[in-house]
Amino acid sequence: MSQSTFKSWAETAPKLVAVAAGRAPADLVIRGGRLVNVQSREILDGWQVAVSEGRFAYVGPDASHCIGEGTKVVEADGRFLIPGLLDGHMHVESGMLTPAEFAAAVIPHGTTTIFHDPHEIANVLGLAGVKMMHDESLLQPINMFTQMPSCAPSAPGLETTGFEISAEDVTEAMSWPGIIGLGEMMNYPGVINGDPQMLAEMAATMAAGKTVGGHYASPDRGIPFHAYVAGGAADDHEGTAESDAIARVRQGMRSMMRLGSAWYDVESQITAVTQKGLDPRNFILCTDDCHSGTLVNDGHMNRVVRHAIACGCDPVIALQMATINTASHFGLERELGSIAPGRRADVILTSSLTDLPIEDVYARGVLVAQGGKLLAECPHYDWPQSARETVRLGKVLEAADFAIPAPAGANAVKARVIGVVENQAPTKALTAELPVSGGLVEAEGEVCQIALVERHRATGKVVNGFVSGFGYTGDMAIASTVAHDSHHMIVVGTSREMMAKAANRLGEVGGGVTVWKDGKELALVELPIAGLMSDSPAVDVAAKAAAMVEAMAACGCTLNNAYMQHSLLALVVIPELRISDLGLVDVIRFEMTDLIMENAQ
Amino acid sequence: MSQSTFKSWAETAPKLVAVAAGRAPADLVIRGGRLVNVQSREILDGWQVAVSEGRFAYVGPDASHCIGEGTKVVEADGRFLIPGLLDGHMHVESGMLTPAEFAAAVIPHGTTTIFHDPHEIANVLGLAGVKMMHDESLLQPINMFTQMPSCAPSAPGLETTGFEISAEDVTEAMSWPGIIGLGEMMNYPGVINGDPQMLAEMAATMAAGKTVGGHYASPDRGIPFHAYVAGGAADDHEGTAESDAIARVRQGMRSMMRLGSAWYDVESQITAVTQKGLDPRNFILCTDDCHSGTLVNDGHMNRVVRHAIACGCDPVIALQMATINTASHFGLERELGSIAPGRRADVILTSSLTDLPIEDVYARGVLVAQGGKLLAECPHYDWPQSARETVRLGKVLEAADFAIPAPAGANAVKARVIGVVENQAPTKALTAELPVSGGLVEAEGEVCQIALVERHRATGKVVNGFVSGFGYTGDMAIASTVAHDSHHMIVVGTSREMMAKAANRLGEVGGGVTVWKDGKELALVELPIAGLMSDSPAVDVAAKAAAMVEAMAACGCTLNNAYMQHSLLALVVIPELRISDLGLVDVIRFEMTDLIMENAQ
Repeated sequence: MSQSTFKSWAETAPKLVAVAAGRAPADLVIRGGRLVNVQSREILDGWQVAVSEGRFAYVGPDASHCIGEGTKVVEADGRFLIPGLLDGHMHVESGMLTPAEFAAAVIPHGTTTIFHDPHEIANVLGLAGVKMMHDESLLQPINMFTQMPSCAPSAPGLETTGFEISAEDVTEAMSWPGIIGLGEMMNYPGVINGDPQMLAEMAATMAAGKTVGGHYASPDRGIPFHAYVAGGAADDHEGTAESDAIARVRQGMRSMMRLGSAWYDVESQITAVTQKGLDPRNFILCTDDCHSGTLVNDGHMNRVVRHAIACGCDPVIALQMATINTASHFGLERELGSIAPGRRADVILTSSLTDLPIEDVYARGVLVAQGGKLLAECPHYDWPQSARETVRLGKVLEAADFAIPAPAGANAVKARVIGVVENQAPTKALTAELPVSGGLVEAEGEVCQIALVERHRATGKVVNGFVSGFGYTGDMAIASTVAHDSHHMIVVGTSREMMAKAANRLGEVGGGVTVWKDGKELALVELPIAGLMSDSPAVDVAAKAAAMVEAMAACGCTLNNAYMQHSLLALVVIPELRISDLGLVDVIRFEMTDLIMENAQ
Repeated sequence: MSQSTFKSWAETAPKLVAVAAGRAPADLVIRGGRLVNVQSREILDGWQVAVSEGRFAYVGPDASHCIGEGTKVVEADGRFLIPGLLDGHMHVESGMLTPAEFAAAVIPHGTTTIFHDPHEIANVLGLAGVKMMHDESLLQPINMFTQMPSCAPSAPGLETTGFEISAEDVTEAMSWPGIIGLGEMMNYPGVINGDPQMLAEMAATMAAGKTVGGHYASPDRGIPFHAYVAGGAADDHEGTAESDAIARVRQGMRSMMRLGSAWYDVESQITAVTQKGLDPRNFILCTDDCHSGTLVNDGHMNRVVRHAIACGCDPVIALQMATINTASHFGLERELGSIAPGRRADVILTSSLTDLPIEDVYARGVLVAQGGKLLAECPHYDWPQSARETVRLGKVLEAADFAIPAPAGANAVKARVIGVVENQAPTKALTAELPVSGGLVEAEGEVCQIALVERHRATGKVVNGFVSGFGYTGDMAIASTVAHDSHHMIVVGTSREMMAKAANRLGEVGGGVTVWKDGKELALVELPIAGLMSDSPAVDVAAKAAAMVEAMAACGCTLNNAYMQHSLLALVVIPELRISDLGLVDVIRFEMTDLIMENAQ
């Protein structure tokens, strides 16, 4: 039963009352377990649940009066019943998967509710793309709510996205059934400075009675932080230290603590509860970004809850942070997130509250996974051609498109170089003396070329620059149409021929990631949906992504998160130096800058 | 600034951001205090607040950048800043006051938000009466939200009310700006049995995204309780024991614990938190019913919080139960109930968290009371004549209207007698042998007469019966147009002449309570609004009510809550024997019964 056809509590109340009263049989009864009650913060031995219409009708010591003809009776055999897990904030696209395949990947891990912000597709396809993600989300057997992206482009004036999101778009989206609020308001300088568009987007969300997601990515908790809070953001997941978490909760925000594929912000913040003893109700666990490999190998919200418990959090409090706290935040506490009458019957059977093995998963009363195996269908949306033909290069690229002409007569130049730093998102604004050969500046040593290939409007435009830190050697190139946040194509290489081949290859397959070396393609991850997502299963995407990372290593790359570093090189909101379709961007002064420095030889 | 013209956070965000950023001066800064943070459950020494547009713009360690021309700076001098207090469920009419005068009475006690269910006026004036209460509520300088009454009549078929509330009325009311949800769903047998009207009322409320108030007034926590919960009630204030409170929270309801003028349900239930250690977030404090005298002499929500603390509850947790917990319950956690940016600037200064003296009270940033003295205006609604002319007797009553004819030829009869029981709401169904004189049955000894005088439709109908337990002597009568829940007129007396005088007197003044003895009026409380409320100040009403109770004593009455007992004699939902406009009601079998028993002599 998809979310869009799932009946409300109000519609089903007559049936739920009849079942609870013993006048009608339940569809499902689970008995003989230990129920984790996240409202009272108790474990109730022997409590039973009866389900009808996909909702809990009865939760109490004895459901035998709800058993009748057709009632499926499940014996929990002493296992714990816990609510299905909620991911309070995340981006489906980070898994390189469509919502359907993301759901298929996480259901066996016990995730039954997701709040996702399709920020990436918004940059590629605008409101129409958000609607597609929203519509596929509503088809799923679990609850996938969409947060309307707030900031596309992320950095107006410094980049051109495929589409832009306006305050009018936000207003329109607020009327869609699956929209739960506004996605992370990351333009915090805009909010602080009273940017009318940002305030209008938040106002439209508040007027609709929905939740404004926050994203205050600054360590400054002084006046700017307070000004940001006054704008209306209701949560924030950008905290990294205990004091960040405490500061947010004291301001009446909910502190979302992340454990993603590359985020490790739970251990450092959960001490606000475990050691400082703050009221836990305003703390929420989330992932923000999970790669397919993490989903396949490590888990999803079960991994986060398990980690929180390992950090010393009481298991029931940790579960509250991934269930009722999240549901309350989004105004859904009477709809899901607990095992109580009227709520969606999303429940997990697990034999341990510390290891949290996800054994049986029920979503809306249906057994959707067992023993790690998906049992439900996760229907695909019929993605239109407009979503599959988003890599528009305008021409076949040649090596010459990646040539960087030197100033007339120069034998060498001093050029700006984007310096990738191991394990850090910020880059360094480096400089290098580079030789000139045949009128062209040549990369050498640690420095190789980077190009941003415009791919939304088929302008044929290529912006060239230099990057260091990957360690690439030989004749190679890697190209990706995942290139936060504008998602043009980023090509990095040591060979202009390989760069052209890689770029053209992504034009052929409609987007993805490709690695080339010595004239041959070493790896390809096809991401035909908006150049961002595959509609293949996570296990296949994870395998291809792993092969892609191996191919990067085969090209000499030594970085820990090599591909992530690659895909962030156009993220013109994080210091210090980035590339966009408009040129090289100084992300300290937030202005364009020249590749070849004036004092070039 | 009234609630209806008070600007939303979204509308004021640009200004709030500017103040928090230091670009615009605040209207008010309070500094030098200790801030009780109900989100984090902390006390923050030295924290300051800046207020603009009636909302908190800045809450933090140093608001000096918000001070500018025109900023009023208040020194807290080490006192605590606590959020204004919320009453989670109550009936304004119980104070015999209009919403305006109720607000005026409770503001000096620190109450800044009230959720009230005008159930009484709904029985007299229907939806129109509810709208009047709603409209006067919106005029007040504090936040008065209206719960749409759900059950008028309370007992269909056993009484006739002035007006009835339909599911369509509920649907209509849900669109009014001050309606916060559905008032206590007290027809729990209806819910349990799937009564379509009751379920439709709850469905309309849920469809509007509002809160369904519960009222499960039964000690049976078995199957009926579970069936009731499945219907959608989100809270309940009828619990009296710790196990009641725990049972409700385990079901995903919020447990409202009452300390009213005659309710003492906090001490017996708060141990669920203080001793059993349950998560306190789902516990709420409320008053349900407060008489004017309590408001004048003892306090309001400050009395309840103080009592909770005296019962061993941590003061900050007790404050949470009267602030953020309540706000969250009604979906208002980002609007009020905490001292945090964007929220309505409702704040109290108090020098002690145990004694809780209410020193300064700010509502929406305005000093509304200081040192127990009201400083704000509480505007009166222009009550129409239809609300002031609700006592329609249809004729001048005479002693003969209260005559009870005996069966032909009887010298004595065996009659049913309503037995009032000291300190209990249920009555006893007694019988008595009564003499016949001149063809009329005469009360004698402990037994006196009771009459229900129809007063809504001017039918001139008088239903007569017998009552015992008051201890009245001499020639006396007491009449009241407050007569739960149908609010006809109840007259109790030893003299038919006095009964007629008392009844006619209330017809003249438009309702209230009057006590007569030996041909003279001993006391009168005029309640001209719907026969239920005075638009005089609480102190005047309290004085008149006290005089009325003294007059009852002068007539020989010895009961503790004599007037309350009187006003509940028509409450045909509480066992065992009551009177209605349709006759004598057996409230065990929920059917009409005869006054004169068949085995009369």
